[in-house]
Amino acid sequence: MTSRPRVLICSLIVWAHQEVQDLLGDIADIIWMDSPDRASFLADCKPGGKYDGIIGIYRENESASAIGRYDKTIIDGLPPSVKWIAHNGAGYDPVDVHACIARGIYLSNTPGAVDDATATTALYLLISTMRQYSFPERSLRSLTWKPAGINRIAHDITNKTLAILGLGGIGKRLAELVQSFPMRVIYHSRNKVADAPAYCEYFADVEEMLGQADVLSVHVPLRKETEGLVGEKWIRALKPGAIIINTARGKVIDEEALIRALKDGHLAAAGLDVFPNEPQVNPRFLDFPQVTLLPHMGTENQDTQKKMEVRALQNLRDFLTTGKGKDLVTEYQTSKVKPRL
Amino acid sequence: MTSRPRVLICSLIVWAHQEVQDLLGDIADIIWMDSPDRASFLADCKPGGKYDGIIGIYRENESASAIGRYDKTIIDGLPPSVKWIAHNGAGYDPVDVHACIARGIYLSNTPGAVDDATATTALYLLISTMRQYSFPERSLRSLTWKPAGINRIAHDITNKTLAILGLGGIGKRLAELVQSFPMRVIYHSRNKVADAPAYCEYFADVEEMLGQADVLSVHVPLRKETEGLVGEKWIRALKPGAIIINTARGKVIDEEALIRALKDGHLAAAGLDVFPNEPQVNPRFLDFPQVTLLPHMGTENQDTQKKMEVRALQNLRDFLTTGKGKDLVTEYQTSKVKPRL
Repeated sequence: MTSRPRVLICSLIVWAHQEVQDLLGDIADIIWMDSPDRASFLADCKPGGKYDGIIGIYRENESASAIGRYDKTIIDGLPPSVKWIAHNGAGYDPVDVHACIARGIYLSNTPGAVDDATATTALYLLISTMRQYSFPERSLRSLTWKPAGINRIAHDITNKTLAILGLGGIGKRLAELVQSFPMRVIYHSRNKVADAPAYCEYFADVEEMLGQADVLSVHVPLRKETEGLVGEKWIRALKPGAIIINTARGKVIDEEALIRALKDGHLAAAGLDVFPNEPQVNPRFLDFPQVTLLPHMGTENQDTQKKMEVRALQNLRDFLTTGKGKDLVTEYQTSKVKPRL
Repeated sequence: MTSRPRVLICSLIVWAHQEVQDLLGDIADIIWMDSPDRASFLADCKPGGKYDGIIGIYRENESASAIGRYDKTIIDGLPPSVKWIAHNGAGYDPVDVHACIARGIYLSNTPGAVDDATATTALYLLISTMRQYSFPERSLRSLTWKPAGINRIAHDITNKTLAILGLGGIGKRLAELVQSFPMRVIYHSRNKVADAPAYCEYFADVEEMLGQADVLSVHVPLRKETEGLVGEKWIRALKPGAIIINTARGKVIDEEALIRALKDGHLAAAGLDVFPNEPQVNPRFLDFPQVTLLPHMGTENQDTQKKMEVRALQNLRDFLTTGKGKDLVTEYQTSKVKPRL
């Protein structure tokens, strides 16, 4: 073993090949994960295995990954030397952060890098649902021109009210993007956001906020306490004819409650980029012509994906060179159990 | 005949029923067009016919209208008393403006009322094509999740360059809408626009502008001199991989040149809300998965449609009460032949 720290690139690098070398090549030995499945990965993590002694790991959520979720089994099976997992992505729900904390492993994500692309996806879904473009697009592609009566269920965006649930980086960016219309922006989060722009009006009472919204856009991470957060009660607190946009995680919304509200017309539309069991989609959504559905395209473009890869690699470099890294996930700020470095 | 002026509501009023009474009820006798076809309309315009003596007309472009285009035959067949046609819509190409001028009839449109909705449609097509959402939407609706490789042809919008051809009300509104990303905005029009915002950079040389654009958005009216304006030469002046958005009129773009450039990959995508022979669409567009197609949805929503109806009715009222009206179409500003009032 050399004296340089060993780092494991555990997921496919798509865009930042040069940056892997530029950011890590001079300070680390780079190991590329090539275990064909979960069991062999765990075997390769054992003493004497090819991942023995690794300090840092780069990973992302690949649905096709041989390793799968970084659940407790994987985290507990990592070599004892591992101190930092640089996750590529804003949402890190496929990584068991509590297992990481218990093991003394830091976990970083790439929050800022996804804000622009994800908020733009939310803006797209907002325009698509308020203007009701999804059904006419399908109509035209069957060469039948404009469906009758679309104008009666379509609205302008300007001066309508957008409620943002969770004013983090993505929520703030969406609030910024709609200023050019403008929309009125109201938001709810557990606490008032200290650095929220003046045009974002805080509601401590979520149901009071929902009652004023033309559109609700969901921007909270998936955690135990946010699963099903947007349920029957909150959906019914929205005005009749309101619209829900979700670019966060499917499980944050109670899918059955959402479908009921679409079916009985309480909600005029929904724009969904995320689903509870991706890549599976509940086919009952296809019954609603007024719903816009995207297969998790939030950050699906080369500019943002490269930015995310570079940011995760930079987090790893920062840790290796300074012993600290940016973008440590929220749980480390609130947890009493701190990783042991 | 009463002493009050007679006005003809020649198209369906969808939203502004109350406003017809509020704006015209106290100053005019309102005649509702009920001629079943073009020939009987012309007969009803003759002396002693039910439209005899009308001074003002409200009309819009209805594809299903019994009257059809206001071509020279219709204009010349209108009662000699007609002095003002209040057209509902920004584009008035279905009205023969030169025949109006020759007959001494004023023609107004509703320019400002359409700006926000049409520019929002252009923004939607811009996001849809740059981020490549149309194909994934169709993929998901066939329950096959994400098409492979979309990330490789998709881009962020922020800091890209948008070229606007024709910086009128709609072009200006689009320039404003993309400021929140921001995009760099460059534009070409016959002359530098005096009141253009500082963030809009003028190019006298259209091909020089095109060479710098990631996206070209077309916002010129259809006239003889703009038919096929965006042809082979201009399309090839765009960078390889550029995108064209059209929310103006289909015939402003040479459709064959556009299809060739999509076919050979010079253009990465196109976002089209308008087509040369609506409601017909060239089915060859369906061969391109990367193209977003809408059936002329630019102003297709109740908020904007009401705003447009009210504005056209207001133009009629202004004329009746003051002898002048706003929103006189461009040709009256440049034509030496002035209507005789």
